Amino acid sequence: MTLRPVQVNIKARDEAALGRFWADALDWATSSEAPGVINLEPRGFDWPDPAALTVDLVRIPDTARVRYRTHVDLATTSVEHEAELVARLRGLGATPLDVGQGKVPWVVMADPEGNAFCVLGAR
Amino acid sequence: MTLRPVQVNIKARDEAALGRFWADALDWATSSEAPGVINLEPRGFDWPDPAALTVDLVRIPDTARVRYRTHVDLATTSVEHEAELVARLRGLGATPLDVGQGKVPWVVMADPEGNAFCVLGAR
Repeated sequence: MTLRPVQVNIKARDEAALGRFWADALDWATSSEAPGVINLEPRGFDWPDPAALTVDLVRIPDTARVRYRTHVDLATTSVEHEAELVARLRGLGATPLDVGQGKVPWVVMADPEGNAFCVLGAR
Repeated sequence: MTLRPVQVNIKARDEAALGRFWADALDWATSSEAPGVINLEPRGFDWPDPAALTVDLVRIPDTARVRYRTHVDLATTSVEHEAELVARLRGLGATPLDVGQGKVPWVVMADPEGNAFCVLGAR
């Protein structure tokens, strides 16, 4: 099955200010799913839109210490799809990655050169 | 005018190997516009597709020394649109960024927190 990245995740010192910049730059709408997170979406977006890309800005204490500030996320449509995709990606050379994420509804992985990306759970 | 990121640019030590991983992961097609560059596109993609996102893998000598390995690109439709967008982005707080790009058909900029991104020329 053909996949596509659905989201770009950018770490921010000041997610509100950086969110305003990118919302103004793209003329997108903003919302916030949780404190420290600004979600940027094309106007009229309704998750999951099979064609749209979204941008999330996530506050972290010290962006200077983060090796990769920007990564892509892949979407899944069910628990079974998520498990199948993670297994397939591991077979291709991706590895699980612990960035201190704890128990979250997505799987953090690294590509063969160590670039972080996430497989999102179904929503 | 509403914009959207059209491309994710990822630096690679071995763009061929990393390109194979991501092409297999996404089930996308690959091409190469230049030595050291692997272009990943959804099957059937025809630039510029107003809905699709593409991924470019670009070889650099030493990925460990690059601060930001992944960035987004914005598309423009004409020389005038490019100039207008760059001026608007500067008004919002973006700044020109010299990463040693030399003379290229795109504009490298930094968002207010220093994240690199590019405004692509019309194709």
